[in-house]
Amino acid sequence: MKSLFLGMLVAGLMGGSSMAVSAAPCESGSELEVRAVLEKQAVAWNQGDVETFMTGYENAETTTFVGSTVTKGYKQVLERYRQRYASKEKMGQLTFSDLEIKPMGCDYASALGHWQLIRSKEAGGNVGGFFTLLLRRTESGWKIFLDHTS
Amino acid sequence: MKSLFLGMLVAGLMGGSSMAVSAAPCESGSELEVRAVLEKQAVAWNQGDVETFMTGYENAETTTFVGSTVTKGYKQVLERYRQRYASKEKMGQLTFSDLEIKPMGCDYASALGHWQLIRSKEAGGNVGGFFTLLLRRTESGWKIFLDHTS
Repeated sequence: MKSLFLGMLVAGLMGGSSMAVSAAPCESGSELEVRAVLEKQAVAWNQGDVETFMTGYENAETTTFVGSTVTKGYKQVLERYRQRYASKEKMGQLTFSDLEIKPMGCDYASALGHWQLIRSKEAGGNVGGFFTLLLRRTESGWKIFLDHTS
Repeated sequence: MKSLFLGMLVAGLMGGSSMAVSAAPCESGSELEVRAVLEKQAVAWNQGDVETFMTGYENAETTTFVGSTVTKGYKQVLERYRQRYASKEKMGQLTFSDLEIKPMGCDYASALGHWQLIRSKEAGGNVGGFFTLLLRRTESGWKIFLDHTS
């Protein structure tokens, strides 16, 4: 009986793991947590604070930004932002909208959304588009490790 | 002793689950399996077979294609391909390159890569760009549920 119980317990645990696709208990909080990361990013951006904005990304050499080219590495992504948005005016006012956050198991999530920058004509005018972010749960919270922005 | 053993077994199983972030045993085969899905897609595309190409996507209303707009639903994504690539000439010859496939736990994976269509001038000329795909493991194999192409 004991080994039967053990077998059922193991099967239950493994079944629980494979069920993570549809509804793992860990996923319930993920959406709010990921949303908070993006909200913090938008607030920092709108204060002209690129360094705090960047803390939404994982500080790793593998962190990837896909725009018109592929940029690899946290420092390189930061540098790209600094070059393209060299002043508070060029950074403008950022809003994220139509956010769709999907947990992928316990430790990963995706975020699809629309971004828009409101800027003066002198600063380059309004721009916007879509982004797909991939985030993972780290010891210091959810961090973006891939950003595909178009 | 038996309950201690049981406790260790459960801890071991749960530890294995949380370790999935860095190296779950299930992840080792994922990259090859996902790569096979994309290779099958490219072969089908280059035979002018959009229906078989589409079998790389999950047949679900939530399947999402992000291009210049967001298209939701398997049928709608298929229809988008049919409209934009209405002939074998317009479909051209597709190649995927610089593929980076990353397992995200056991049941999810991302694929970043570059795509190119070689076409005659009459059919629209060559085009290309980047894509980020999100795939999940289903009963009928790995399927794309989000495609951000730019």
